[in-house]
Amino acid sequence: MSSTFQAVDPSTGTPGATFEAATPADVHAAVTAADEAFRAGALRDPQRRAALLRGAAERLRAAGDEIVAVAGSETGLPEGRLRGELERTAGQLEAFAAVVDAGDYVEAIIDRADPDAKPIPRPDVRRMLVPIGPVAVFGASNFPLAFSTAGGDTASALAAGCPVIVKGHPSHPGTSAVVARELAGAVADAGLPEATFALLQSSGVEVGEALVDEPAIAAVGFTGSFAGGKALYDRAAARERPIPVFAEMGSVNPIVVTEAALSERSEAIAEGLAASVASFGGQLCTKPGVVFIPAGEAGEAFAADLGARLTAAEPQVLLNERLRDALTASVAELGELAEPVDGAGTPAEPGFRFRPAAYRAAADDVRDRPGLLEERFGPIVLLLSYRSREELLDALLRIDGQLTGSVHAQPEDAELVALLTVALGERAGRVIFDGFPTGVAVTYGMHHGGPFPATTAPAHTSVGMTAIRRFLRPVALQDAPEHVLPPELQDANPLGIWRRVDGELTRDALTQ
Amino acid sequence: MSSTFQAVDPSTGTPGATFEAATPADVHAAVTAADEAFRAGALRDPQRRAALLRGAAERLRAAGDEIVAVAGSETGLPEGRLRGELERTAGQLEAFAAVVDAGDYVEAIIDRADPDAKPIPRPDVRRMLVPIGPVAVFGASNFPLAFSTAGGDTASALAAGCPVIVKGHPSHPGTSAVVARELAGAVADAGLPEATFALLQSSGVEVGEALVDEPAIAAVGFTGSFAGGKALYDRAAARERPIPVFAEMGSVNPIVVTEAALSERSEAIAEGLAASVASFGGQLCTKPGVVFIPAGEAGEAFAADLGARLTAAEPQVLLNERLRDALTASVAELGELAEPVDGAGTPAEPGFRFRPAAYRAAADDVRDRPGLLEERFGPIVLLLSYRSREELLDALLRIDGQLTGSVHAQPEDAELVALLTVALGERAGRVIFDGFPTGVAVTYGMHHGGPFPATTAPAHTSVGMTAIRRFLRPVALQDAPEHVLPPELQDANPLGIWRRVDGELTRDALTQ
Repeated sequence: MSSTFQAVDPSTGTPGATFEAATPADVHAAVTAADEAFRAGALRDPQRRAALLRGAAERLRAAGDEIVAVAGSETGLPEGRLRGELERTAGQLEAFAAVVDAGDYVEAIIDRADPDAKPIPRPDVRRMLVPIGPVAVFGASNFPLAFSTAGGDTASALAAGCPVIVKGHPSHPGTSAVVARELAGAVADAGLPEATFALLQSSGVEVGEALVDEPAIAAVGFTGSFAGGKALYDRAAARERPIPVFAEMGSVNPIVVTEAALSERSEAIAEGLAASVASFGGQLCTKPGVVFIPAGEAGEAFAADLGARLTAAEPQVLLNERLRDALTASVAELGELAEPVDGAGTPAEPGFRFRPAAYRAAADDVRDRPGLLEERFGPIVLLLSYRSREELLDALLRIDGQLTGSVHAQPEDAELVALLTVALGERAGRVIFDGFPTGVAVTYGMHHGGPFPATTAPAHTSVGMTAIRRFLRPVALQDAPEHVLPPELQDANPLGIWRRVDGELTRDALTQ
Repeated sequence: MSSTFQAVDPSTGTPGATFEAATPADVHAAVTAADEAFRAGALRDPQRRAALLRGAAERLRAAGDEIVAVAGSETGLPEGRLRGELERTAGQLEAFAAVVDAGDYVEAIIDRADPDAKPIPRPDVRRMLVPIGPVAVFGASNFPLAFSTAGGDTASALAAGCPVIVKGHPSHPGTSAVVARELAGAVADAGLPEATFALLQSSGVEVGEALVDEPAIAAVGFTGSFAGGKALYDRAAARERPIPVFAEMGSVNPIVVTEAALSERSEAIAEGLAASVASFGGQLCTKPGVVFIPAGEAGEAFAADLGARLTAAEPQVLLNERLRDALTASVAELGELAEPVDGAGTPAEPGFRFRPAAYRAAADDVRDRPGLLEERFGPIVLLLSYRSREELLDALLRIDGQLTGSVHAQPEDAELVALLTVALGERAGRVIFDGFPTGVAVTYGMHHGGPFPATTAPAHTSVGMTAIRRFLRPVALQDAPEHVLPPELQDANPLGIWRRVDGELTRDALTQ
């Protein structure tokens, strides 16, 4: 029994190519093969993994024109954005190859034996991180490359040594297919088993559910809606063997603008904010959804400026019909709770478009209208005006776990900024100063995560080099003979990695 | 409405002191106060946290006679063991103080700005780990000190900067009360808020359930039975804001003995194994439950030797009546699946005692009798005889996630040992060579954890210095002004900690 589904160009609503959906048997076969590939051992070779990641980057760049063309027709995203996203995706794969090369992501720790230790003699204990097992990745609709088939979850899981099975997002099946073809080529080029990577396409939820239920799946990476991520989290927790779900589910990304900042650079902030809200249809998990501005004349002027900028912008193409309908309903709800500053946010044509808009309410209103603080995935922003520092801080305390929080301030705001840094740091994974949360830089220490409900795993990130930690678990070897020690734990430290020996970081070999 | 419960001396069955159980109002008050203490900021001071941990160690040692006397009367554990456990507990507190002093557990990462980065300019990103919030700790019955009120979970959570609320184990309420008194004293001495630490006593499950349900609780540490840990995991996952549960739930800790090892040192292995199985009533989460031995004459002789040693041992005091009854039922079930080698394991008096015993079956039997591989918490061990390497490896593959796996082998077994290291490493958190899994050394890299069902969080450990990672989450500051940067992230690196700057580990200050 097979079924099919169609790609759709959201800029016109025109149906495109037809794709065959995976069956339950396909899911089981892919996971079984991935588990065998995991156990076979070739993935333990860091050189092959680095070759896979670099090869994938090279192949994606080489197929860039084809990928950008298909992705453009399936997402409505502009070519410049897709070229940038492709380069980011390739760069991310290469950055994880460098992490594999450096090798110290295994967090090797060696505690040498101490026969005189009290209360009991101490054995030789050597611990490192090892891959957790086959990983299921759910791609996001809004980043058809960087958070999808060969995106950050896939790159970090492969770098860790875990086979990956991607449930392709039905909003860009052609893009997923082309990227998967190149990734499969890189797997073969690197001499790794074919089942190191697989793509399962489907438009319904059954394939994803079956994937999470497969006993051999060891962890799940997900980027998308709260409803989707929470459903996977609940499903994975209810398995006979529960597994971790690293779901990044978005947030309202509060921004605070101080009175001093507004009087100094109101126009620059309005310009940056309008771009951050409306670009790419506002369909970014870090899109600013709520902005706190001072009540009074300067705030009024700022709101009017921002509202006009958004209303004047072109209607934005949304990624698919479902998102357009959900946003339409959500903005209608917002219209009951707040007022449009200028024009209202409404759907537009051709295809699945939406008019950007700003809404406004008083910061104090969030006490009685918690719906004001819900995410609206699209080019919509809510301005909340505060009359005092107390009102501002009180409203901030009502905000749930967030991916980001931002502050626009001036040097004279030092005391307030310190308070805001604590308040935002308690509820967000990243605090940004005098900038906007969109445009997440892929750097070593980037943290793209945050307390629930922004994610289901506040201790982890889905962007940046430490994302690899999600797919690793420690194993300790006690009094192991040298011949079974992996290179990372051998006395001679043949890989030259950083290790913690008797509590101190060092790259030296062990001396007896 | 209050209720009381009594301590019981398990060596005689005699009731002891009476304790008042916490009420739901007590739970809420303790969590509310802990949350306020968390936000108040004093816990962010590493010097005070180190002072608390060292002060607690000093106070516990000073109260050692009282603690050991109370714990002995509540657990039946011998004085020597309790003195050793007290020293281990104090040493663990001090070791975490040293981790706080060293400061690099925050995993500071600094990526400097790069305005020329492609595809977009790179901001200054500085990331470190911060405490997750108030932690609930469920003490274990079998380690009244090291895994209880001031045990590893409490020590690592306090070191991380999280207030701790302990649900005391009803099997040793007097011990918990004395330890809590000393810990409270150390909190006051360190100038920290009183609510930094609280103990809630009760004999039922309601107090623990209410504790896990409290919205401000951010994580749970637990050591105990599978049923208990899994119930807390499920409860925490079903909260409106799900939280992580770090439950360490025990396992059967398989041991493999090769033919060569048996022919070389059968007696030494039997002696070590008998001690590992029977000591302290076999009530250790790392007690060897299943031992694979070669079929044939040498194996027969080994089994007879071990069986005789166990049968000759004194009946062991179990921790409480409930454990004695559960073990009685579990061993009766084992008697249906396997044969006693010598005498059977049976309850004894006075108090709640049990006769140590070995049982035997063929390794091949685990195919049809999965019940053979269940944990029996007490001085009972099952010998499984294997006729071939294939039979051995096949049986190992049927074993679930484990805390440990051990191998006793000789140099000529190198090839087999390599295979066993992989098979055991895939399902256990620690692999031990020519030793026994009991007696977990508290070292930097000790891993006391493992895949489910050994734990609910295979990426983490409950023993060793990395246990602190459970109670931390990352926060990144982007383009932050120097005045809001914590010392760990300041240019000058005033704490002199290791940091990853632009991808490389260094203790140097940043130069512009």
